[in-house]
Amino acid sequence: MNAIDIINKTKRKIQLTEEEIKYLVNGYTSGEIPDYQMSAWLMAVCLNGLTEAETVALTLAMRDSGDILDLGCIEKITVDKHSTGGVGDKTSFIIGPAAAACGVAVPKMSGRGLGHTGGTIDKLESVKGYRVDVEFDEFADIVNKTGFSIISQSGQLCPADKKIYALRNSTGTVDSIPLICASIMSKKLALNADCLLLDVKCGTGAFMKTPEDARKLGDLMEKVGKAAGKKCRAIVTDMNTPLGCCIGNSLEVKEAVELLQGKIKGRLYDICIELTANMLELAGKGSIEECAEMAKEAISSGKALGILKETIEMQGGDSRICDDVELLPKAKYSHIIYAPRDVEVIGIDAEELGMASLILGAGRINKDDEIDYTAGIVLEFELGDKVSMDAPIMTLYSDCVSDFSDAAYRAYNALKFRTLTENALT
Amino acid sequence: MNAIDIINKTKRKIQLTEEEIKYLVNGYTSGEIPDYQMSAWLMAVCLNGLTEAETVALTLAMRDSGDILDLGCIEKITVDKHSTGGVGDKTSFIIGPAAAACGVAVPKMSGRGLGHTGGTIDKLESVKGYRVDVEFDEFADIVNKTGFSIISQSGQLCPADKKIYALRNSTGTVDSIPLICASIMSKKLALNADCLLLDVKCGTGAFMKTPEDARKLGDLMEKVGKAAGKKCRAIVTDMNTPLGCCIGNSLEVKEAVELLQGKIKGRLYDICIELTANMLELAGKGSIEECAEMAKEAISSGKALGILKETIEMQGGDSRICDDVELLPKAKYSHIIYAPRDVEVIGIDAEELGMASLILGAGRINKDDEIDYTAGIVLEFELGDKVSMDAPIMTLYSDCVSDFSDAAYRAYNALKFRTLTENALT
Repeated sequence: MNAIDIINKTKRKIQLTEEEIKYLVNGYTSGEIPDYQMSAWLMAVCLNGLTEAETVALTLAMRDSGDILDLGCIEKITVDKHSTGGVGDKTSFIIGPAAAACGVAVPKMSGRGLGHTGGTIDKLESVKGYRVDVEFDEFADIVNKTGFSIISQSGQLCPADKKIYALRNSTGTVDSIPLICASIMSKKLALNADCLLLDVKCGTGAFMKTPEDARKLGDLMEKVGKAAGKKCRAIVTDMNTPLGCCIGNSLEVKEAVELLQGKIKGRLYDICIELTANMLELAGKGSIEECAEMAKEAISSGKALGILKETIEMQGGDSRICDDVELLPKAKYSHIIYAPRDVEVIGIDAEELGMASLILGAGRINKDDEIDYTAGIVLEFELGDKVSMDAPIMTLYSDCVSDFSDAAYRAYNALKFRTLTENALT
Repeated sequence: MNAIDIINKTKRKIQLTEEEIKYLVNGYTSGEIPDYQMSAWLMAVCLNGLTEAETVALTLAMRDSGDILDLGCIEKITVDKHSTGGVGDKTSFIIGPAAAACGVAVPKMSGRGLGHTGGTIDKLESVKGYRVDVEFDEFADIVNKTGFSIISQSGQLCPADKKIYALRNSTGTVDSIPLICASIMSKKLALNADCLLLDVKCGTGAFMKTPEDARKLGDLMEKVGKAAGKKCRAIVTDMNTPLGCCIGNSLEVKEAVELLQGKIKGRLYDICIELTANMLELAGKGSIEECAEMAKEAISSGKALGILKETIEMQGGDSRICDDVELLPKAKYSHIIYAPRDVEVIGIDAEELGMASLILGAGRINKDDEIDYTAGIVLEFELGDKVSMDAPIMTLYSDCVSDFSDAAYRAYNALKFRTLTENALT
């Protein structure tokens, strides 16, 4: 077996065997197969695709490149949720506690953000003292006590994915559905929860721009998850407009807490209920309708907020923020953008708002960049709202940028307005 | 400008600008662009192709990566010929002297062989004393005196091609018509002769397996040559069966000399006349028919042989081989294969004979392998000949292999026979 023959097979659309895929993944992870052979193969995959069987084999070989967690020490049935990432996606620390409140265990490992989509770990780190690097035993202990924990991904899980992802990033081989599937699923399968809900974001603010691609990725991930023996479901949710009103790390934690306090309804609330209901249903807690009721009750009763508070406390974080969001870190500088005339908001480009937020310091352009936890954007309206002239439409925040002109220009242009006649506002 | 954007464009079939291609070639040659980015781009080219304009830009950027020869010091019009390589292709040292005998200058730089196809330089080195590493001034001097010289390619020509070729070889990105075109044409354009005849070999013994691919490569090379201001023509010639009876370095020199001595007619002779006539016609020496007559005359008069002899002498080689081929080095071991019954030879697989010859030591598997100049195969028949039982059909030669079983098995199986009834031979 050698790498050139394997590259040639994929180039000629000849299906690889499981052994060939293992050889490639293990050889690349150990350094025997050089970057330049792997990148040629990755490009062949981008252009020719992989079969379902090949994608399963690739995912399992990547999963097996490192540790696979043994969650046997967690008493309840374990449910993991993964979102393919979007702008303003703070669902993890809403639905995790909500599902835990309904009797399942949600042990979650997350990553940091890169580019215009935020990372769950970055968001949590905006809570003073919150420890994301927690050893497995303590992690399991927290999950057993509260039902929920989020920690950062350990270096021992999926070293193959780490190396392949870095190479894809620098060789124009990111946008391939089988490669995206293998990258996500290898990590999820190494985490090894019993049930796995996949939230495939679709739209301008997500990696998948069209419903067709999102469904294709979702179906493929479902098949791979089932092939690996998991209860697995993928649902496609909209990411053409941002999720909620807040984009940015501490701003998103604030919005999540306010939702768990019962103060926020609307699209973000609806999606959180839908995701939680699916997690519970996968775990066998009842029909989807019953599970949705349980999820609503978990929030309205304050039980989910209690779990979030307890988890933050056990991980060393300032849990008082669950009672008073004003205790979260705040930006030094802010800038309000006003409506230029009487308008109706008819479009919000999530990706562009993500980019504006990146300029403000909320995200990373390079892997090792420092981020500004307080930076971000708060929208003062929802899609379809009517805003009168000179009323605020959004507020920009930053600790590191005092000149808001670039970010404001970009954020303002992310919105699409319809000018209203004089009477339309009344 | 950056490599990832360029890779992404080719991946999405967006035409690159001349500047982008220059940036890529220069960046890779200088080491600023790493192997893994170049190999991803090469794979995208293999699968998506390049436009004609991109192929021209790539070829010229590769040509410009090193020296471009100034052949102004050569008095006559210069004509170069390139063959895409095949089994038993010894035309270079037949048609070079023949064309020179008709009044054009043939300054030729060649390479060594790799795999089952031989290299012109290897063949010439089987002539005792022949110097292939000759400085440019001496090379020009020889061409001015005899009309013809072959030396090995200098390291200063096309460093980009050298580096890209090595990478293609180890990343499964060899079989791409635009990449093959750019590799060949960049070297030929750096050599910078006025006229360029391209002999595109087609068949089992060649890189191009089908007439369609051969014609496509030929057309593309012609267009690139013309875009670079050269008189340029590509002709497709058959390489399903080997060219002539001899395969192997000194054996091929022997056959070439015998042809120039007027002792050999048949397919090899016909192709040599066709190629020489095209070279002369390109150089404006007359119509193709007139040029063919001149070529025949150059051989029958002994003038071409005289030029070969003089050139060998000026390059330090044992020129007596032109009068007595028995002075060429001979193998220690030989092995005759006999006809198993009365047969007609209805097929000869050139590639398989090339592989058998490789096993005997005539070629290189790896770039730095030593080769056996005496090794090879002599066919005792031509395609379509009838051979009676127990008559020799071929002889295998080697200095380094005394057990012929592997090579004999492979060589024998390269032939296709039709069994003859008792009367068919008479």
